[in-house]
Amino acid sequence: MAKVNENFLKIDREYIFPIIEQKLDEFRRNNPHETLYNLGIGDVSQPLTKTVAKAINLATQEMASRPIGYGPATGYDFLKQAIIETIYKKYEVSLEEVFISDGILSDIADMQELFCHQSVIGLPDPSYPAYIDTNVFAGRAGNLISKQKYSNMIYFACNQETGFKPLPDDRSSQIIYLCSPNNPTGVALTENDLARWVNYAHKQKAIILYDAAYCDFICSKNVPKSIYEIPGAKEVAIEMRSFSKSAGFTGLRCSYSIIPKEIKLLSSHGSESMNRLWKLRQNAKYNGTSYLSQRAAEAALSPQGTKEANMQLTQYQKSAKDLFMGLSSMGYEVCGGIDSPYVWWKIPYGKSSWEFFETLLTRCKVLAVPGIGFGLEGNRFIRLSGFAHSDAVHGALKSIKRL
Amino acid sequence: MAKVNENFLKIDREYIFPIIEQKLDEFRRNNPHETLYNLGIGDVSQPLTKTVAKAINLATQEMASRPIGYGPATGYDFLKQAIIETIYKKYEVSLEEVFISDGILSDIADMQELFCHQSVIGLPDPSYPAYIDTNVFAGRAGNLISKQKYSNMIYFACNQETGFKPLPDDRSSQIIYLCSPNNPTGVALTENDLARWVNYAHKQKAIILYDAAYCDFICSKNVPKSIYEIPGAKEVAIEMRSFSKSAGFTGLRCSYSIIPKEIKLLSSHGSESMNRLWKLRQNAKYNGTSYLSQRAAEAALSPQGTKEANMQLTQYQKSAKDLFMGLSSMGYEVCGGIDSPYVWWKIPYGKSSWEFFETLLTRCKVLAVPGIGFGLEGNRFIRLSGFAHSDAVHGALKSIKRL
Repeated sequence: MAKVNENFLKIDREYIFPIIEQKLDEFRRNNPHETLYNLGIGDVSQPLTKTVAKAINLATQEMASRPIGYGPATGYDFLKQAIIETIYKKYEVSLEEVFISDGILSDIADMQELFCHQSVIGLPDPSYPAYIDTNVFAGRAGNLISKQKYSNMIYFACNQETGFKPLPDDRSSQIIYLCSPNNPTGVALTENDLARWVNYAHKQKAIILYDAAYCDFICSKNVPKSIYEIPGAKEVAIEMRSFSKSAGFTGLRCSYSIIPKEIKLLSSHGSESMNRLWKLRQNAKYNGTSYLSQRAAEAALSPQGTKEANMQLTQYQKSAKDLFMGLSSMGYEVCGGIDSPYVWWKIPYGKSSWEFFETLLTRCKVLAVPGIGFGLEGNRFIRLSGFAHSDAVHGALKSIKRL
Repeated sequence: MAKVNENFLKIDREYIFPIIEQKLDEFRRNNPHETLYNLGIGDVSQPLTKTVAKAINLATQEMASRPIGYGPATGYDFLKQAIIETIYKKYEVSLEEVFISDGILSDIADMQELFCHQSVIGLPDPSYPAYIDTNVFAGRAGNLISKQKYSNMIYFACNQETGFKPLPDDRSSQIIYLCSPNNPTGVALTENDLARWVNYAHKQKAIILYDAAYCDFICSKNVPKSIYEIPGAKEVAIEMRSFSKSAGFTGLRCSYSIIPKEIKLLSSHGSESMNRLWKLRQNAKYNGTSYLSQRAAEAALSPQGTKEANMQLTQYQKSAKDLFMGLSSMGYEVCGGIDSPYVWWKIPYGKSSWEFFETLLTRCKVLAVPGIGFGLEGNRFIRLSGFAHSDAVHGALKSIKRL
């Protein structure tokens, strides 16, 4: 009889984001006339920019006038070229090192496939839950040894002691998930922090899967947007970026991974290029990203596209900063919100994050995300998202003030 | 040190389609003024229909006027509803049983994740190469025991004896890949054949992954488009369909899988619903299909959209039939081409399929796909695609006549 992959039964909690969506739906159903301040899922609150919409219209016209079928599984050169020109020229990234995809989630969820099953996984706690779940499904996480802890994972705590960011120590791991600015704590790794991680990876001969989904929010000095600012990073780090948050593509789907040819994995015959393996994998398992999304992404990188995207970004940055400043001025302990769209709020009343989530929703009409959804270290925290209009942010702050 | 998943090194041949693309590029570079008859990759040769283009324009306008971000990982209800209304109402498929995706390849490549590692895989030989490669990567195929043969796979030969379609026998397997009409042989399973497979699956308590990518080409009597025509199929079969070939979406990306709630996998605690597991998987690993593609797909299912798609389909069907008739009338042994866009041609001169591929390309200017790319049983065959204009088909036939 067909049997299940028992690793799927090792997940001991539900995936957080669909629950938040359900809570949102429920609230709206039960309170149809109530204003809700949605600071939950990090999703766009502004429409597509003009330049992007125009590019989609053009590409649609093109597809309606001549057959445009399968593109390369790894993406079109026109987009790879634009990415290199605008971002990666100084790091000497070549066309063959850029892989276009429909979202960072897909790439970061699938990249573990290339590694040996016994690899030890290092990751921040709290972190984006997909880093954990995808490895649990694949059997790479090992067994559940206690609540939300797996035998084959080591957790780099992001708490008050570490400044709410992951910092390397002397524990050994081979696959390292990093996200900077970190989701959910909103704290970005400085040049010095990143250099420590690159050094760690070289020492451990480990690979860093660097999730730079929110890098365009970085504005502080000495906080690099790209890990390739660090010498030696191209031998140990894969960088993933998306158009989702920087150009409002969450509904369109387009992202990319940089896999330098220098990156090698040990094999019984010597070593294997991760770049070659990922290409092999994508050719066999993926039929490429929508032509419309790729043309849209190209437009988002044009001078006018960048200008328009930056205007939206500025608004999100302001919302995040206002949240941070507003809560700080009320005397709450918060971090993030400066180089990141997310504000990480320490729960003041000894409540668990689900209890405080419910308090915020029912008493303040504020939708947030409970920190426990990102890991055990998050249980006394709440994540608020700055992907919201100014009105929502100020409404929420006013409402929280009355708590 | 980070080690490779050695299963990736067990692939003993390159993936066929990127090689064909390379051959095409090379030919065009070396023969810039030569006409090429492209009967290679099964890709659209007609532009998007008017109704589809109009729907994309509308959806783009919508996205440019209000924020439309992440959709549900499993797809929007508006598209699921349209799919049920037009195709699955008679099979009593519910909204929760429809999963929207960016392509059958993604779903069929990922579905194996849900099964126990030791599951024996049954599949047609020849077949779509992704069925094999994705299981090899994941370690489910076992070891390479001889050229293109893996220890954990059983191969149902599609040859002259079986009428070039897979038929069940008494060998045991738990995950069964079926494609009807079969790619590459172009032969569809009759109602009787399908009933035998459903019966086999019930007896073995196996699951059928039913790839119906080309079902809209079926026109013969007693050849069902859906496996759910067979009583008992909903307990054992997942059906996957795409807009790629039926509505020219290869560049747009949209498909869906039907996972009936009845389907169970054995677990150490009892049994697990595949529907629940796939939802869990998609929520954690996939951020949904582009809104534009989903609106385009909805339009393709509308009465006018269906009419326009059918006009394109009719042309492809004519091309396939002309190829079949043309080669037959020259005395060649061919099958397919009637309920399928593909014609499967027995190589006449004792050549291998790669040798004959080169002969066709250099002497006839015909791009085909060598049968060996689909499995050992394909080595004495060539696949020709009817996704071509009438001119290309007739030019190719004329050119082949001079061989």
